[in-house]
Amino acid sequence: MSAPTLRRARMKIAVLGTGMVGHALAGKLVALGHEVMMGSREAGNPKGTEWAAQAGPRASAGSFADAVATAELVINATPGMVSLAALEEAGAENLAGKVLLDVSNPLDFSHGFPPSLSVCNTDSIAETIQRTFPEARVVKALNTVMAPLMVDPLRLDGGAHDVFVAGNDDGAKAAVVGILREFGWLPEHIRDLGGLEVARGTEMWMPLWLRIFMRQQQGKLFNIAVVSE
Amino acid sequence: MSAPTLRRARMKIAVLGTGMVGHALAGKLVALGHEVMMGSREAGNPKGTEWAAQAGPRASAGSFADAVATAELVINATPGMVSLAALEEAGAENLAGKVLLDVSNPLDFSHGFPPSLSVCNTDSIAETIQRTFPEARVVKALNTVMAPLMVDPLRLDGGAHDVFVAGNDDGAKAAVVGILREFGWLPEHIRDLGGLEVARGTEMWMPLWLRIFMRQQQGKLFNIAVVSE
Repeated sequence: MSAPTLRRARMKIAVLGTGMVGHALAGKLVALGHEVMMGSREAGNPKGTEWAAQAGPRASAGSFADAVATAELVINATPGMVSLAALEEAGAENLAGKVLLDVSNPLDFSHGFPPSLSVCNTDSIAETIQRTFPEARVVKALNTVMAPLMVDPLRLDGGAHDVFVAGNDDGAKAAVVGILREFGWLPEHIRDLGGLEVARGTEMWMPLWLRIFMRQQQGKLFNIAVVSE
Repeated sequence: MSAPTLRRARMKIAVLGTGMVGHALAGKLVALGHEVMMGSREAGNPKGTEWAAQAGPRASAGSFADAVATAELVINATPGMVSLAALEEAGAENLAGKVLLDVSNPLDFSHGFPPSLSVCNTDSIAETIQRTFPEARVVKALNTVMAPLMVDPLRLDGGAHDVFVAGNDDGAKAAVVGILREFGWLPEHIRDLGGLEVARGTEMWMPLWLRIFMRQQQGKLFNIAVVSE
């Protein structure tokens, strides 16, 4: 008898962004059996092509538009300050009807470190994306978590720490929760907090996250857990 | 032989604010042996005088200025939107040189619930108070925690959850940490994150706190713990 497994559909996934977060997500998704195209501003971006060359036959690289055009699910792993421009290049028509998992944070480094936020309080980057691309099915998740933990939560304390999910489309949230389960997130630590406006809260957590990060020993993983009665 | 105890100085403490947070703090401080005056806008405020009447001989009530004038340590437990006005009434000369523990949050309910913040991102209410009263020794702490847990952290998970401390004056922070220890906070869960600008982060945690709160079973206590390697 085989062990019980999650029902897992192989998907075509676009990962937009070639930074640490994009690499972590794209690499894990390929390892899980998905077909992943890493998207960047220029189709020949060496970060994308080098990743694709070493990540095996299910990995490829292309422009933002190339990646999104054929994808069933899109992950925005670009920095929040450039996410709208990246998604404009991807094309509203390519995004229409698709689940768009937004893991970005609107960090503004123009005044130094630690960064401030380019949008907050009464708006969020996730809501801005949803307004700009009304036919995309935007879900906010994972932006509160360090890249290595996003795709391997069990590395820290047996997975006893939390990830937050927000979005207006229940089907899209279910798809994202499916991905989180594939990454190893435990159901009781996946906290669906409601509609996409909740992203204001998860994005505004960043300033405290950064202060905790600055006090951590370098290289040590951390996250938060909600402790409740 | 007596059990080891914390070195505990009986202090005269002003608690500004007659709401749930003020009551929780004032009540616990009296129980710990401190002399507490609960301050409010009008010296005859019934919330203050009723509290003082039932809280015993070490409890009293008065105006903001009355409370601060004789205090060695001041706690701002007024709503963030009115904290500056309350402290103006308390008087800059009364605040000069004193530790001022700011537990307020700049919650703006003028557009409904959940509230937005009246100041955030590149400033905080704590920093605003410090700028306005440069001779006060402002420390931000406890604003991230529910009132019942502020003064009794051991009620939840044996105290295995976190409180954050920020301020520019190390002596003032040490005094506040002393109070936190008296409340029962465990040393490894008192996280000093640095200067007062860290208050931007702890105040900006509120929007996520509120969303978690809205999903909690009514009346259930919760807080967060930093989980790290």
